[in-house]
Amino acid sequence: MADKERMIKPEALEVYLSTLFEKAGMNKVDAKFSADCMVKTNLWGVDSHGVLRMPIYLQRVLAKVINPEPEISPVSEMEGPMALLDGDAGMGYVVGRSGMDLAIEKAKKYGIGMVLARNSNHFGAAALYARQAVDAGMIGIATTNVIPNIGMKGNAKPSTGNNPIAMAAPLDGDFPFVLDISLSAVAGGKLLLAQKKGEKIPKEWAVTKEGKETDDPFAGFAGFLLPVGLHKGFGLSLFVDLITGVLSGGPYLHGLKSMYKHADDPSLTSHLFIVINPEVFLSKEAYMERITDWAAMVHGTEMVDPDTKQVIPGEIEYMKEQERRSNGIPVPAELIKDLAKYSEELGVEMPPAFCD
Amino acid sequence: MADKERMIKPEALEVYLSTLFEKAGMNKVDAKFSADCMVKTNLWGVDSHGVLRMPIYLQRVLAKVINPEPEISPVSEMEGPMALLDGDAGMGYVVGRSGMDLAIEKAKKYGIGMVLARNSNHFGAAALYARQAVDAGMIGIATTNVIPNIGMKGNAKPSTGNNPIAMAAPLDGDFPFVLDISLSAVAGGKLLLAQKKGEKIPKEWAVTKEGKETDDPFAGFAGFLLPVGLHKGFGLSLFVDLITGVLSGGPYLHGLKSMYKHADDPSLTSHLFIVINPEVFLSKEAYMERITDWAAMVHGTEMVDPDTKQVIPGEIEYMKEQERRSNGIPVPAELIKDLAKYSEELGVEMPPAFCD
Repeated sequence: MADKERMIKPEALEVYLSTLFEKAGMNKVDAKFSADCMVKTNLWGVDSHGVLRMPIYLQRVLAKVINPEPEISPVSEMEGPMALLDGDAGMGYVVGRSGMDLAIEKAKKYGIGMVLARNSNHFGAAALYARQAVDAGMIGIATTNVIPNIGMKGNAKPSTGNNPIAMAAPLDGDFPFVLDISLSAVAGGKLLLAQKKGEKIPKEWAVTKEGKETDDPFAGFAGFLLPVGLHKGFGLSLFVDLITGVLSGGPYLHGLKSMYKHADDPSLTSHLFIVINPEVFLSKEAYMERITDWAAMVHGTEMVDPDTKQVIPGEIEYMKEQERRSNGIPVPAELIKDLAKYSEELGVEMPPAFCD
Repeated sequence: MADKERMIKPEALEVYLSTLFEKAGMNKVDAKFSADCMVKTNLWGVDSHGVLRMPIYLQRVLAKVINPEPEISPVSEMEGPMALLDGDAGMGYVVGRSGMDLAIEKAKKYGIGMVLARNSNHFGAAALYARQAVDAGMIGIATTNVIPNIGMKGNAKPSTGNNPIAMAAPLDGDFPFVLDISLSAVAGGKLLLAQKKGEKIPKEWAVTKEGKETDDPFAGFAGFLLPVGLHKGFGLSLFVDLITGVLSGGPYLHGLKSMYKHADDPSLTSHLFIVINPEVFLSKEAYMERITDWAAMVHGTEMVDPDTKQVIPGEIEYMKEQERRSNGIPVPAELIKDLAKYSEELGVEMPPAFCD
């Protein structure tokens, strides 16, 4: 096997991941859905999630730390637009789908739906669920709490999570509006890039492992990331933790468990899903007319370089998806080696694209 | 009159502002409420809003660009947790109060309330409305669209608003959790400070008036601010504009009017208010117990300097309020001169604190 990454077609990757999940104990529907979520994420170019997380997922499903057969059910009977689900320590994708499906159902009936799901695990890219709402013609918001992995300036250790938030809304065209952001100043990958380039980093990106100010990408990577906009991202992160963890009755802040550091424990994350039906306010036609004009206004932004164009959130992911549907999804050689072990253990043939 | 700022007691400031509003044509209740909003904002230390905005408000109320006697009413009859109000070009504070009051009413009945208000004006600090929900024992979110005043890197002109967002939740103590942030990288005041200190600014704060990269605080102040976290704040800003302006049927992006550049036109802003009743998920006792533990965890964050303590959003504003209730609110001499003109025009005596 070569040392470089291999390109694999999305269809082949999905079949492979889905088969692995099934052999690891998940039912066919959940296995296929989870694999589909991961492939979609890679298609959008979000390689920090997607297939990269397969080994840890498999390890945890096999150890039944991620419950392969969760019974996701309401914690109590709730009428009206809100609900609270217990994820039964299921795969985050599966809990996420259930939560968003229910929020969509509520929004169809009440105009808005808000569903909390506790006792879940890593649910991948938050955009997956926000987009579910768009597929139903509505506006979606999805967020989750995660283990403290960022801290405020002055903190000696991480004090809150980079709690990702996604928001999506229908546009009249090839792609929806989709924003999916974490609440750290930048992704850790930006520090690795600065290391390679031999560049310093802004002091607002990260601190040393003692929490001290740094412009050195090595010291910053060994330390922890700061929140986006300092007190702005810090406050947003705390609010997400409050409205998910505190409100759901699940753990919050240091009560959560990292799936890497505590591979043998459920993560106990809580997710939030909000769906808004635009038709409460506008007819479908009026919404489409207005959003089309709005999108044209964003696209029409005057640029410093007239050969460039202002993109709308979701547009880059759409372009990336077209490219990767043609050229395939890159999978690093190291990751293929890890997957080979699970292939052998579970008796699942490696896809030809991964073999010499 | 001296050139320096004067200190005025909050009670005296409120009576003065309220009387000015009333003489300008607003009814007693709305005048007092608006004055109260402004004084509160100053008490929290948010001097970018509060009394600073009095001259432009008065100018606009007197010209009836801000309708002194708005009939704020539902655009259509909506059952369930959602509503859309027409602000009738009223004072933003008054429209904001109506919107949040209705969202609270909805949340009491349905667990969640979402109210959009269109055809409004500058509503001051978004925290005012989020805190209204806390006063009713609930969680509040308030946001608004504003005229494009920030832009993405590469934009030759501002392309979206710094659309402030506030979130508040009850805590069991002297102050609630309150986050109130705008979506620019920093406030313009930070550039003025760098000018005074002779310091360069990070290239992520602002661009020149041609949209070009700069680390010069003068060139940046003459240009426009970048979004917090670049694509993160940009995307959030667009989403706020979409969910307020597009959804409410009001104007969006460049369709809005600046109250300064277009002092003779209504601003036509749209606000969004969301209220969540925690008691849908938890008993009041369970919520208070959990949030108290949560807040203690934030306060207990290990700090680099053990003599410091991690604050919770809203805590600094609380401390500032204690101080200003004792010492008074500082009002710049220039602003007092502007107010003196309106005092004369409307026949309202200047407060003794403003006079020699």
